[in-house]
Amino acid sequence: MFDAPTSPHPTARVTTLDNGVRVVTDLMAGLHTASVGVWVDAGTRHETPDQNGAAHLLEHLVFKGAGGRTAQALAEDAESRGIWLNAATSYERTGFHARCIGEDVAFALGLCADLVLAPHLDANDLELERGVVMQEIGEATDDPADRAGVLHQRACFPDQALGLSILGEPDSLAGLNLDDIIAFRERTYASRAMIVGGAGLVDHDALVDFAQTRFGSLPARDPAAAEAARPVAASLVEARDSEQLNLILSIAGLPSGHPSMLALRLMTEILGGGMASRLFQDLRERRGLVYSVEAYAEMFRDTGRLGIAAGCSASQAGQVATSVREHLNAMAETGPTEAELARAKRVFGASMLMAAESPGARAEAAVSQTLVFGAPLTMEGVRQRLAAATVDDVRAIAKQALMEQLPAASAVGPKAGLEAAGAFATV
Amino acid sequence: MFDAPTSPHPTARVTTLDNGVRVVTDLMAGLHTASVGVWVDAGTRHETPDQNGAAHLLEHLVFKGAGGRTAQALAEDAESRGIWLNAATSYERTGFHARCIGEDVAFALGLCADLVLAPHLDANDLELERGVVMQEIGEATDDPADRAGVLHQRACFPDQALGLSILGEPDSLAGLNLDDIIAFRERTYASRAMIVGGAGLVDHDALVDFAQTRFGSLPARDPAAAEAARPVAASLVEARDSEQLNLILSIAGLPSGHPSMLALRLMTEILGGGMASRLFQDLRERRGLVYSVEAYAEMFRDTGRLGIAAGCSASQAGQVATSVREHLNAMAETGPTEAELARAKRVFGASMLMAAESPGARAEAAVSQTLVFGAPLTMEGVRQRLAAATVDDVRAIAKQALMEQLPAASAVGPKAGLEAAGAFATV
Repeated sequence: MFDAPTSPHPTARVTTLDNGVRVVTDLMAGLHTASVGVWVDAGTRHETPDQNGAAHLLEHLVFKGAGGRTAQALAEDAESRGIWLNAATSYERTGFHARCIGEDVAFALGLCADLVLAPHLDANDLELERGVVMQEIGEATDDPADRAGVLHQRACFPDQALGLSILGEPDSLAGLNLDDIIAFRERTYASRAMIVGGAGLVDHDALVDFAQTRFGSLPARDPAAAEAARPVAASLVEARDSEQLNLILSIAGLPSGHPSMLALRLMTEILGGGMASRLFQDLRERRGLVYSVEAYAEMFRDTGRLGIAAGCSASQAGQVATSVREHLNAMAETGPTEAELARAKRVFGASMLMAAESPGARAEAAVSQTLVFGAPLTMEGVRQRLAAATVDDVRAIAKQALMEQLPAASAVGPKAGLEAAGAFATV
Repeated sequence: MFDAPTSPHPTARVTTLDNGVRVVTDLMAGLHTASVGVWVDAGTRHETPDQNGAAHLLEHLVFKGAGGRTAQALAEDAESRGIWLNAATSYERTGFHARCIGEDVAFALGLCADLVLAPHLDANDLELERGVVMQEIGEATDDPADRAGVLHQRACFPDQALGLSILGEPDSLAGLNLDDIIAFRERTYASRAMIVGGAGLVDHDALVDFAQTRFGSLPARDPAAAEAARPVAASLVEARDSEQLNLILSIAGLPSGHPSMLALRLMTEILGGGMASRLFQDLRERRGLVYSVEAYAEMFRDTGRLGIAAGCSASQAGQVATSVREHLNAMAETGPTEAELARAKRVFGASMLMAAESPGARAEAAVSQTLVFGAPLTMEGVRQRLAAATVDDVRAIAKQALMEQLPAASAVGPKAGLEAAGAFATV
């Protein structure tokens, strides 16, 4: 086991066990609680279309029994100490995490370790949990914003794991058996894919000891491979007899850890981050075209999207899509003003300071940054790069995104508004 | 101006200006950021049916211009310091709040004060914002869980302000003119209804000075009266061609500040608070009947509801409603076990400790408790009452709720599941 050569953050520490399991902590002075967990570099991207939903179903299934505890005992043991135990599955990661008071860190991490290392994986439990996830799919399908998101991902990455739905499709879910789930787990839950971590009132050495005891005997193994993303220009829409239209428009963005990541984040802030952003001011405040509009940068290991999500009435969808296109072009041509850039930097800096006071946000950041950069970023380092970003950097990144284009769109809502999505994606 | 006679919390302070405006702060050692705002004891409960939506529309409208700033200048001035400015309207309160770094507390509070004291209230802005809120109503109507909530409130409190929708109805919103909004504001934005407050890196004396300067010259005036709640037994359902059914069932609960409030909260935790709760374990883990199920205690000044919200498939709605009724009866007959009570206490205690480390949660708690009790509760006081709560207390509160009954239900989803709501409400 070796420690990272230089301390990456005044308060953050990373230790790698001999088998590649990493331990990341970020001690927060003055706190009495912590956010801890075990994260695995495994998710929907590691599925095949006929096994779509395996990562998420596995995440659910382990809660039915692990480490000798039934589902009820797991829940009772956690709550008897007031621990909030939860989990989440995304395209590239599955996380099992706990919020707890400082004295219960070891116990909470023990529960997370049981879920990751010692799940019972019982066939009867699988049937019951399959039913629960089927209902979760139903709820997500009923929610028009969720549904637009699923369609958008499929439009960007058709016939690829990255285009699958995280929850799976009713058909693929119905076809998953216990062997599929076990095979998925064995393929993806590898030592070098795992991070044990936490932020708040955590003791790094104690977490390293814990990880050594529970994870130290795992064989050294690399994370599972995922096929490279092949984004395309496309649109997918779904007619629905709803009041509002949910519209998502995107163009090429950047992969996680790209050197221009910060410039892209500043650009999304200026374009559609807050109430002072161009899209909010123009589409909502001046013209009342949308109820909600937001720009975002979504980043995966090898690709990314610069997206705009809007809620509007069907009759105005065409105007919304045209305006979004114009705002993207303007950003690539003339870039932001100095005042806009300064504002975006202040928003980014203040958000970072606020997040730094939340154990949950800080644990997630430490783990994400360790997966992408090998260690948590220092706040001072981010501040320096933030100070150095220029109007030209932001304009350049907008220009690059628009040169790559690959526009994609999705829409869920009244028929009259669906055309706007197709028009955006075929520019 | 006088200070509360005894410090109600080691870190919380309350000062009341001569005209009744209150200043509440909760200093959190070690933090560099704060959550501050101005809250007004005014909301949907103070509306008449034909002016339904006035409180929320006013909250929106003030952001279109206040204190000599346009909407754009308000947003830019906030974001140029990285301040997150936001607002929320509920039945009994409208809050304007800001998250900011410590050095910007005075500036952020100045913006909130402008929104409350010096809005421009322009007729053209009203038209634009009416359109935005119409779209917000559309989004809320499309969301089946939101819609079930609106119907449930109307079922419990028909023909009463407390049964109105916070967003308003398209018809009532269309009928609101600027004079209505101004009249609503003049009637409800009274000095004794206002609280200036914050938590985090805040200086109480500085906030008192600020409040004296900005709010000190307001005439002393009592909060607007709201008609007393008259809850009834009723159900309201809406057929929708969706995948899942959203079901809300409730019986009589307790008003805010009731001496048995803590026993009720413990009961909802035991009944349907977390993964170890009776409803989650029985309905989801053992029987797979629901995707989600949650019990909650909703409290208003003079009434309250003990509710259960569930997402399930239509064919299982009848079983869900019957089981909920059985679990309510069991709680009233035999109460919780000692182990369940101990667990609920730990969950409550740990949640309190976690919330105590979040400036936003702590500011909201300080303001809510000041509105209900006159001052923030001390954590030590809550701990003592928590320790003293017994199995009998919880059983007694369940029994009392079931004696009062007044069952109400709402459901949104496939026709086949709607009957369950009616059956629950007519027991």
